[in-house]
Amino acid sequence: MFLSAGDSSIYTDFYQLTMLQGYVLSGRKNDIAVFDYFFRNIPFEGGYAIFAGINEVAMLISNLQFDAAVLDYLAGQGMNTATIAYLKTFKFSGSIYAAREGEVVFAGEPLIRVEAPLPEAQLIETLLLNFVNFQTLIATKAARMRAVMGEDKIFIDMGLRRAQGMGALQASRAAFIGGANSTSNVLAGKTYGIPISGTQAHAWIQSFADELTAFRQYAAFYPDNTTLLVDTYDTLNSGVPNAITVAKELESSGHRLKSIRLDSGDLAWLSRQARQMLDNAGLAYVKIAASNSLDEHIIKSLQEQGACLDIYGVGTKLVTGDESPALDGVYKLCLINDAPRIKISENVSKMTLPDRKKIIRYTNTAGEFVADGIALAAEHKLERIVHPRDSFKEFDVRELQSEPLLVPVIENGVLQPLPTIQAAAAYAKKRLAQLPQEYKRFTNPHTYKVGASPALLALRDRLVRERKTKKENS
Amino acid sequence: MFLSAGDSSIYTDFYQLTMLQGYVLSGRKNDIAVFDYFFRNIPFEGGYAIFAGINEVAMLISNLQFDAAVLDYLAGQGMNTATIAYLKTFKFSGSIYAAREGEVVFAGEPLIRVEAPLPEAQLIETLLLNFVNFQTLIATKAARMRAVMGEDKIFIDMGLRRAQGMGALQASRAAFIGGANSTSNVLAGKTYGIPISGTQAHAWIQSFADELTAFRQYAAFYPDNTTLLVDTYDTLNSGVPNAITVAKELESSGHRLKSIRLDSGDLAWLSRQARQMLDNAGLAYVKIAASNSLDEHIIKSLQEQGACLDIYGVGTKLVTGDESPALDGVYKLCLINDAPRIKISENVSKMTLPDRKKIIRYTNTAGEFVADGIALAAEHKLERIVHPRDSFKEFDVRELQSEPLLVPVIENGVLQPLPTIQAAAAYAKKRLAQLPQEYKRFTNPHTYKVGASPALLALRDRLVRERKTKKENS
Repeated sequence: MFLSAGDSSIYTDFYQLTMLQGYVLSGRKNDIAVFDYFFRNIPFEGGYAIFAGINEVAMLISNLQFDAAVLDYLAGQGMNTATIAYLKTFKFSGSIYAAREGEVVFAGEPLIRVEAPLPEAQLIETLLLNFVNFQTLIATKAARMRAVMGEDKIFIDMGLRRAQGMGALQASRAAFIGGANSTSNVLAGKTYGIPISGTQAHAWIQSFADELTAFRQYAAFYPDNTTLLVDTYDTLNSGVPNAITVAKELESSGHRLKSIRLDSGDLAWLSRQARQMLDNAGLAYVKIAASNSLDEHIIKSLQEQGACLDIYGVGTKLVTGDESPALDGVYKLCLINDAPRIKISENVSKMTLPDRKKIIRYTNTAGEFVADGIALAAEHKLERIVHPRDSFKEFDVRELQSEPLLVPVIENGVLQPLPTIQAAAAYAKKRLAQLPQEYKRFTNPHTYKVGASPALLALRDRLVRERKTKKENS
Repeated sequence: MFLSAGDSSIYTDFYQLTMLQGYVLSGRKNDIAVFDYFFRNIPFEGGYAIFAGINEVAMLISNLQFDAAVLDYLAGQGMNTATIAYLKTFKFSGSIYAAREGEVVFAGEPLIRVEAPLPEAQLIETLLLNFVNFQTLIATKAARMRAVMGEDKIFIDMGLRRAQGMGALQASRAAFIGGANSTSNVLAGKTYGIPISGTQAHAWIQSFADELTAFRQYAAFYPDNTTLLVDTYDTLNSGVPNAITVAKELESSGHRLKSIRLDSGDLAWLSRQARQMLDNAGLAYVKIAASNSLDEHIIKSLQEQGACLDIYGVGTKLVTGDESPALDGVYKLCLINDAPRIKISENVSKMTLPDRKKIIRYTNTAGEFVADGIALAAEHKLERIVHPRDSFKEFDVRELQSEPLLVPVIENGVLQPLPTIQAAAAYAKKRLAQLPQEYKRFTNPHTYKVGASPALLALRDRLVRERKTKKENS
């Protein structure tokens, strides 16, 4: 997973360690804290997100330890000997409950609940945010691309060269969960068991004196797995005719050219021309791939124009989450030693929900998602849920089916059995099928209902009032 | 550096390996190739970029090798035994010439020249692009932020939690080269020797029954290094007054509160109010820090409004290169066994420059940058440079000073001595001072001249004509 146990321990903001030292030195290392993870806005102006990264980061958290080199470094940064002694035997002993990898999720609901001794829960904040924020972003982006291209297209992640440094690895993992079929990223393929794809670049073509020789040579080595890149010199006057020549030669030796790839120019028009040329040559089985700065908007436009494309190679705009390159997920303290906590802040939208909570997903008899409810963990069956910032918006949930959204990922320090990413990808697909179409609409989707229980909102309001009273009396 | 020698070997697109296999099997493994790296557009609508990442990736390239686990994986993916045998003893034996880490660079000029046996030069493409594209993007973003805030402010990278996965590490490295003073990212601090910063989060405040106790406890542990976060409940009615109380208590024991931090609300207005309250309490030495989705536009606006801020904590929008989250750098074959090569493509702007080339930076007698020239490596002193796509645009360079921009990073497989990132950061600062103000203008900067030698353009035009003739005769 690229981060060793020692690296994971300091893959964190320094303030987590200065606070941890404060907790340790003030004798609060056994205080029990509960933190929530949630994000405030669904990215890409979409109606849903695909939750990802949790299982990978849970493995890192369960293995995390401070090695000698790290402890030396921290001592050199002025950390106290009592803190160093504490870190030396550090092992995450808490519990993490989270939505499943691949779950369809929404803004404002606590998707992860961490219950642990205060310094432990504090330390892992940054690691957890870094992994879950980014992978949820990219899984969501991939799901949007898959949604516009449909299930019958082949969708390849080719973003490594312009990905944000080593974030490429997490991007390929998340893209696969969100709907990509394969990746060009060999290390991601080996690490995560994602199928890898790749054929040839312009350099292969250019390295030969002429295009036809370059095509022939490649096909000779990969007679059953060749994609010919046809735009190095002139797509329709050179690339496609040469590809047809090679396809015919392959046929004569009992093989089949797999596909051609368009990487520049007007992809809709070129694909229709190329399709016709291939069909006229009796090569209806040769697929056409497209690449070149594709995103979900361009793919949608290509589909609407009737482009003759079977394979989409998507790079930069998938792996960077172009348009909104970060998910705004946060991690907020909601309970300390059984005392519920809130944060008020200057911005009303940043106010948090207190106490240990659960999420309930409500479905109709057809199994479709209807609404999510946030309730106190101890609450029984709810009758209604209420909009957290508009108490006039209520929703009756008595007639609906319900299921808990959070499951244990780590319990009392023990990593739970986690599904493979293939299973997570299948889960995402299944859950997206349960989300009604109006929330999946590409433009201006309907807002999915996320409400809180009346008891939870009453607790929040009481804490706000107490805080205001305290201030007035101070 | 997080990527082991084995990981580095397959931190690549699969097509690099399928092509490599083709080169090996067709007896071309000793063909000598020259590739250029360049980017087509300066990011963030700016007038310059800061080149970064080259020294880190050069270390990886010089160490890269295929270990047993990787070879097993590749054999399982169908790679040929002859290829596996070739990879088993793989060591990069070529040379890499590049602009210096921290150099001020522009679009369209070959910033890296790789000369190596064809399969070696091909294999490293993706690794090189991934590191240089991203770090150049982020160093440039950081330089823009530093430019608007001025040299007297403290500039802290706090982006880890919303960075793109492990790209956070490269982001912190690049941000430091581009102008940040420190990072919150402890692992980046340890790995690269960047100073680390961090104080407290809202969770620290919330974990206590009241804000004043939280402030007092923190200051007790860090009496000379405390930044108090003042917006958890009410910035001006609670946070700042409590901070003043603690500052006075610190004074009475011979210490000084370092700073307060604003993390929400109207930062310009709040900072002026807070400054006045601190000054009225005789605490003119207490600095004010701001954070909360800052970018260069917001920092510029805060500065123009006369915000009383000494420290900027910048996160998400720095480390993701928000606005344009990828640099469009490419790697193109320009020479194979002494035969110059071009790529024509469907898009004219994607046409490449052939042959082994150098870059010359022209300066005036004051040492200011005037223009960059791209010439054939063998050319002597140029008289003029010409716009590559507009031959009417010429520029006389006879009266200017000149210096070569590319220096050896790896020569015949041997890694050259490389400067520290502290030296790279100092170099970036020095070189930015040599760039005239009109190219550094925040909005609508002047376009820096990058021209090619007449001999180079004549070669390119001849190759294009030959290619067209070949097509017509085919």
